[in-house]
Amino acid sequence: MLFAGFNLVSAQTTKDSLQLRNFYDLSLLNGNSYQWLDELSNDIGPRLSGSTGAEKAVQWAKKELESIGLDKVWLQPVMVPKWERGAPEKAHIEGPDGSIDVPVCALGGSIATAPSGVTAEVVEVQGLDDLAKYGEDQLKGKIVFYNRPMQADLIQTFSAYGGCVDQRYAGAMEAAKYGAVGVIVRSMNLRMDDLPHTGSMSYGDLPNDKRIPAAAISTNGAALLSKMLKKDKSTQFYLKMNCKNYEEDVPSFNVIGEITGSEKPNEFMVVGGHLDSWDLGDGSHDDGAGVVQSMEVLRLMKAANYKPKHSIRVVLFMNEENGLRGGTEYAKVAKQEGEKHVFGLESDAGGFTPRGFSFDADKANFEQVQSWIPLFKPYLIHFFELGGSGADVGPLKEEGTVLAGLRPDSQRYFDHHHASNDTFDAVNKRELELGAATMTSLVYLFDTYGVIPPITNEKPLKD
Amino acid sequence: MLFAGFNLVSAQTTKDSLQLRNFYDLSLLNGNSYQWLDELSNDIGPRLSGSTGAEKAVQWAKKELESIGLDKVWLQPVMVPKWERGAPEKAHIEGPDGSIDVPVCALGGSIATAPSGVTAEVVEVQGLDDLAKYGEDQLKGKIVFYNRPMQADLIQTFSAYGGCVDQRYAGAMEAAKYGAVGVIVRSMNLRMDDLPHTGSMSYGDLPNDKRIPAAAISTNGAALLSKMLKKDKSTQFYLKMNCKNYEEDVPSFNVIGEITGSEKPNEFMVVGGHLDSWDLGDGSHDDGAGVVQSMEVLRLMKAANYKPKHSIRVVLFMNEENGLRGGTEYAKVAKQEGEKHVFGLESDAGGFTPRGFSFDADKANFEQVQSWIPLFKPYLIHFFELGGSGADVGPLKEEGTVLAGLRPDSQRYFDHHHASNDTFDAVNKRELELGAATMTSLVYLFDTYGVIPPITNEKPLKD
Repeated sequence: MLFAGFNLVSAQTTKDSLQLRNFYDLSLLNGNSYQWLDELSNDIGPRLSGSTGAEKAVQWAKKELESIGLDKVWLQPVMVPKWERGAPEKAHIEGPDGSIDVPVCALGGSIATAPSGVTAEVVEVQGLDDLAKYGEDQLKGKIVFYNRPMQADLIQTFSAYGGCVDQRYAGAMEAAKYGAVGVIVRSMNLRMDDLPHTGSMSYGDLPNDKRIPAAAISTNGAALLSKMLKKDKSTQFYLKMNCKNYEEDVPSFNVIGEITGSEKPNEFMVVGGHLDSWDLGDGSHDDGAGVVQSMEVLRLMKAANYKPKHSIRVVLFMNEENGLRGGTEYAKVAKQEGEKHVFGLESDAGGFTPRGFSFDADKANFEQVQSWIPLFKPYLIHFFELGGSGADVGPLKEEGTVLAGLRPDSQRYFDHHHASNDTFDAVNKRELELGAATMTSLVYLFDTYGVIPPITNEKPLKD
Repeated sequence: MLFAGFNLVSAQTTKDSLQLRNFYDLSLLNGNSYQWLDELSNDIGPRLSGSTGAEKAVQWAKKELESIGLDKVWLQPVMVPKWERGAPEKAHIEGPDGSIDVPVCALGGSIATAPSGVTAEVVEVQGLDDLAKYGEDQLKGKIVFYNRPMQADLIQTFSAYGGCVDQRYAGAMEAAKYGAVGVIVRSMNLRMDDLPHTGSMSYGDLPNDKRIPAAAISTNGAALLSKMLKKDKSTQFYLKMNCKNYEEDVPSFNVIGEITGSEKPNEFMVVGGHLDSWDLGDGSHDDGAGVVQSMEVLRLMKAANYKPKHSIRVVLFMNEENGLRGGTEYAKVAKQEGEKHVFGLESDAGGFTPRGFSFDADKANFEQVQSWIPLFKPYLIHFFELGGSGADVGPLKEEGTVLAGLRPDSQRYFDHHHASNDTFDAVNKRELELGAATMTSLVYLFDTYGVIPPITNEKPLKD
């Protein structure tokens, strides 16, 4: 019996190995992800929520998904906020020998400066906590300059990002409370260069008349400003921004495609990325890569003639960057319709060489994942850890749902994130294709072995 | 006793963990490898054996090693071959609507064409074995076009390279035997682009009057030529090359630095890369990265105030690319001097994110390496396999010696290898620094725990 059992396991393992090999071969030899990314990045380009680019991306994705023979493709309406950058920003430091231009960009959601710009002295701080130390006395009428850098000694760069991004998100909201007239934030970038990195910010409950403009400054610009402030505390900074928040939300869509399950059509597994991007580059890494990889998962299943037991959906979420409306709406509708979602996988960490996945799962499901690790070894996929999944699939979390996020190599990600160099040429074809095959393999394994239902009263290992 | 033993092991593990963390911190926060690479790549540039660049690199490396407080720094003389590209090559396909220029470059070691160039019909083959099928009848007076691509489905790109490089190395030697008048080889590149990739070739014992010129053609150029040959077998190709082999070897040097061991000064551990490069780019990945990482290993040990038990040497080898004279000479001198080398580590696979090491080691030493794997996990270093080490440390192999090669992520390596885009901007600072810290960590562990001496009559697992 033991021997028979061993043979059964072994036969299944061989079958799985061959299936994974087939997905990787199809992706590397005849993949479509790179071609799709070329179209999304170079033909459509930037696609901030509410923009013409976003609308074009929706129509393009629908058409492409319709072309690969899925069982259903549809658009799911979702209202999104609209913000526009307007004419390029201007900024300079008033130095002793004249003014020095520095590269800045408005943070997404910021108000504009007055048409004449804002000029003020600068108070450099290392974070939100410093504001109380300076107090209104020293901050009123000033520009607050948040200059805490990302920690270079953290191996996983997303941890370094997480340790800094509060400055960008809440910097203006908090500084406004002390009477500051503007905010400059050091770009979330581990390199020293001349590119400002945008990203979302919030004013929270701050009334309109209390809001102040907020910009990112390049890392080189931040270093220069800091150096000049050390020489002369009264150094002034000039900032001019032309951005605009629209009062009314505008209509947009999540794009959804489905292969209906052969055995459990009413149990859903979702794979997705976000279709919107910031406006400075063409969003190739963030998150064009995740979009085309997610599309490729379903295309590879079709190409391999693999017929899933569960219904597998690709969901291309709208508005991850500045509202998460798409992810929120998808989960809301799923709940309304009583659609049971057992698994969600997101790719939103760049199109670099895949290293593995992080999981939001209970003990039983995480142990099942561990049993699959040897299958991934030939592809140098080694990272299987508990941790976050992704912003867009997050709202699908219920007891027993397994969520996962693709974890590519992260060393170069913040060189490009939300900046003008997040462009097609920064994505390597093979790295992108390896990611698509790795995602397909994980979805295949969950489809084959199922998600283990929760035991009542068991606590999840990680929320 | 068991409990006491456990505590001892645990204390040592903690000590090792902290030591590794310190090396990574020093490299990422205050490393010097990227600055060194900037100087080597941008101030010195290409450094083919026998060139002015190579001579400058020797003097630069000696000066820099002298600046970091090693116990000894010296130059080891070595005679090297000299080859020069001369004026840029020209090539075109004679098409039905006129000639189409295609990007080519001479392979290193090739003779020039006649001053008027060579024009001939082309026979496309998939490899050396095809020559006998065509025979002298069909090859005499023709240009042989080797067009077997690197296999995209191989996950480790060095395997794909190994499966193709015989065309480049021996293509001319073999085609000449059938009376061919020239050779064009598809560039060893997994991308489709317009950059030809050079590299070494050999005529073997072929007498001078039988030698024929050999060039690499870009992958796009190869695709175009192949397409045109399918339409018209009599399509002609024009090739003009101006390169030159010097008859006499010229003097050069390996650059060596040493921290003398505190307990076993007469047992040597070597870490190295090769100082020479091809001439088209600036050799930042091949092997500027390995050079500066190897220098950084000793600098990090000094910075950490770590005093090794064994003598640790950095060896910057000359002439890896087209002769291996430096690696051969270093091993020869070591043997003459009776210097016992117990460990050699090479970095010559690019400056990308490190994934681990391959080893040339016996069972006992490889098992010891396996016990260290958990120490590397926080740094996402997971690849520890038997396999090759590196060309330059290879000649140090004796029974009981452990050799290793750093294994960075390889997906982008052949986009740049031996081409004009192997330049500084293609190297990421953090990836380079992580590699240096990873190498330092391995040398530290071998220094701390020693290389296990061979048991007589035991066969090595891998030659």
